[in-house]
Amino acid sequence: MKKINIGLIGFGTVGSSVVKILKERKELIKRKLGAELVIKRIVDKDISTPRKVKVPAKILTKRINDVLNDPEIDIVIELIGDSPVAEKIIMGAIKRGKPIVTANKALLAKKGRRIFKEAERKGVEIYFEASVGGGIPIIKALREGLAANRISSLFGIINGTANYILSGMSHYGSSFKEALRDARAKGYAERDPSLDVEGIDSAHKLTILSTLAFEGFVDLKDIYREGITKITSQDIQYAKEFGYVVKLLAIAKESNGSLEARVHPTMIPQEHLLAAVDGAYNAIYVRGDLIGRSMFYGRGAGGFPAASAVVADIMDLVKSGGRFLSSNFSKGPLKIKNMGEVETRYYIHFTTVDRPGVLASISGILAKHRISIASVIQKERREKGKVPIVMMTHEAKESSIQKALREIDRLKVVKAKSMLIRVEGEL
Amino acid sequence: MKKINIGLIGFGTVGSSVVKILKERKELIKRKLGAELVIKRIVDKDISTPRKVKVPAKILTKRINDVLNDPEIDIVIELIGDSPVAEKIIMGAIKRGKPIVTANKALLAKKGRRIFKEAERKGVEIYFEASVGGGIPIIKALREGLAANRISSLFGIINGTANYILSGMSHYGSSFKEALRDARAKGYAERDPSLDVEGIDSAHKLTILSTLAFEGFVDLKDIYREGITKITSQDIQYAKEFGYVVKLLAIAKESNGSLEARVHPTMIPQEHLLAAVDGAYNAIYVRGDLIGRSMFYGRGAGGFPAASAVVADIMDLVKSGGRFLSSNFSKGPLKIKNMGEVETRYYIHFTTVDRPGVLASISGILAKHRISIASVIQKERREKGKVPIVMMTHEAKESSIQKALREIDRLKVVKAKSMLIRVEGEL
Repeated sequence: MKKINIGLIGFGTVGSSVVKILKERKELIKRKLGAELVIKRIVDKDISTPRKVKVPAKILTKRINDVLNDPEIDIVIELIGDSPVAEKIIMGAIKRGKPIVTANKALLAKKGRRIFKEAERKGVEIYFEASVGGGIPIIKALREGLAANRISSLFGIINGTANYILSGMSHYGSSFKEALRDARAKGYAERDPSLDVEGIDSAHKLTILSTLAFEGFVDLKDIYREGITKITSQDIQYAKEFGYVVKLLAIAKESNGSLEARVHPTMIPQEHLLAAVDGAYNAIYVRGDLIGRSMFYGRGAGGFPAASAVVADIMDLVKSGGRFLSSNFSKGPLKIKNMGEVETRYYIHFTTVDRPGVLASISGILAKHRISIASVIQKERREKGKVPIVMMTHEAKESSIQKALREIDRLKVVKAKSMLIRVEGEL
Repeated sequence: MKKINIGLIGFGTVGSSVVKILKERKELIKRKLGAELVIKRIVDKDISTPRKVKVPAKILTKRINDVLNDPEIDIVIELIGDSPVAEKIIMGAIKRGKPIVTANKALLAKKGRRIFKEAERKGVEIYFEASVGGGIPIIKALREGLAANRISSLFGIINGTANYILSGMSHYGSSFKEALRDARAKGYAERDPSLDVEGIDSAHKLTILSTLAFEGFVDLKDIYREGITKITSQDIQYAKEFGYVVKLLAIAKESNGSLEARVHPTMIPQEHLLAAVDGAYNAIYVRGDLIGRSMFYGRGAGGFPAASAVVADIMDLVKSGGRFLSSNFSKGPLKIKNMGEVETRYYIHFTTVDRPGVLASISGILAKHRISIASVIQKERREKGKVPIVMMTHEAKESSIQKALREIDRLKVVKAKSMLIRVEGEL
């Protein structure tokens, strides 16, 4: 039976899960693959701390070149995360003609163009299923399963931490801080949660998904990004009253011939399937012209889900026998619509004094900017003389809304910066 | 650029959609595939009725052998549906070493073992993504994306017609007959709907899914099957009161070392993601030991969704370059648990006279068979002196339930055959 030698770089949570699977599932993989996968070398900065799987000491090394320069190693697995070293590893493997499996969404989002151009020049395959959606085979679905479709839109809940926090705020009425504390206690949030709660990780993943779905390079820099830190439990409560749920969505969609790519808190209808995606789960909702609506759901993070994707990639690489899936990273960059040009509906929460004429002033300014109001809730409940006015607008241009809000926030009767949440009614 | 000649057999809804895609999306496919797909021949009984796509008259033929015996044809697409001719086509293509793409779930379910044994002997690939779940790439997910997982359970809403009917009954309180009429009017149900509403189609698809997921041949004959024709809107209403939704589920799951494979109406918790799968949509909920819970959702039927899967299969075949995905149909048959041995929870609806002691008699019999009651609703509402008693049991053995029901249904105070719906609380 054919033996495939693997060099693993990065022996952390995902790396050790990969080793565990390859070790304990040797027979299943042999049976499915008709080949044996052998871990020939494991590279890590730390080769002394015991991991959840035992490996012979002699295969452990701290030197990356022990993998890159070993002519017997057939496939390089890069699992060290976002670091300048990761780029060196991948470029080094490409240079030596070794196919690569990586989970490195940040690196692909930031350096994907350079990496894939070089990989295509050298005819080297890079597989990256684990970079988005953990164990959900969404990369494969976009590249292969839905290959005949023109994708018109893609909506993703692709950060489990942010979704866990928003779900907590929605179900238990907790504040952002409380929900974050809970996410930390459960191991879903890191000490510095900014990658997750500021939407940075979602934007990285959206770069990858939209580049695949829309067949052209989507530059991370062109993706509008807004996190969930300013969402209050009160806004989530009002959203409910309007029949909506707040999710951190990564959105890429065609509208009038150009592409929108944005990550921000979004209100979606309560009865939509994405609204039911709770806790640390991920889901990617895709519309294709042939298949219509589809959704892919599962665990977005964790050692074993990601390792499941890594091992599937290795098996695909072995079976591919030279088959080359072009990635779209090297294609012409797609023009992304300026955020000011985006048209959508808006939820706006004004904090005003309780005095006659306030609603008139606000709605006057909105009208001047041609923003039409769909519904309003004005509550009697007040704190220290402040009254919340919340409204849903009809479709309006982002630039108009921003101009109107700046004007409204300067009114004397407005007591705090107005809160805006974009609404996607038709997903 | 390499040209791949395709012989299409079956120029119906799916067939003509395939032709339309290959024609109108020629450039996209060339770009993604690095090869050109050419439809060299189309076979159908009817070659005169105009289709939604125009083709040169000279490529149309009524003779299957014009495809099978043409040495220039590289791939055979079989889309004629369940018919003895389909088996001949596929066996003929295998004999001539031509790879096949088919959507024929009924044929694969009934003759898959013979077909795949022969295909493996000859080293001929058969792809069948369109056989289950329309445009949802679930076959690919099970064979490739989740390849490293041990699947522990699979729950599928894999018949759009049945799901459309049950959704209608649930949302509008309509009767089975009314909902069926509506499904017919919308084009979701055929004149003879028995394949769909009796669970036959779901059982065919479950044979395919469970054979892939559990790595052994699951014989259609071993799958327990029960349709939705006896479900009343009243039962759906009671289910709601207990917090459940009724779905026609195709279930395959490991329990205590053996496999259960069954298709029947099933009550699932209202808040479960599968409960939100409405109308003509399909979804397959899969639990794997590495990925945990996952779900794949989309349109289960229709020309374009199925054609999307067929074209993806063709593209995969072209790219595979000799890669051979073993199907499990030729593997040792899996032992399927006898339905009597299955243990689950039950919803039971008794129709009794309104007289003291009725509940005592019924619960006495249940207790004798060691069936313990979780909750009871006894309604005051009655028609012609009949009173409904509905209950949910704790876990019990199917054989015990059946024995108890036979005994209960012989009681003089029981006025109609008791209605039983199985409950899956933990999916």
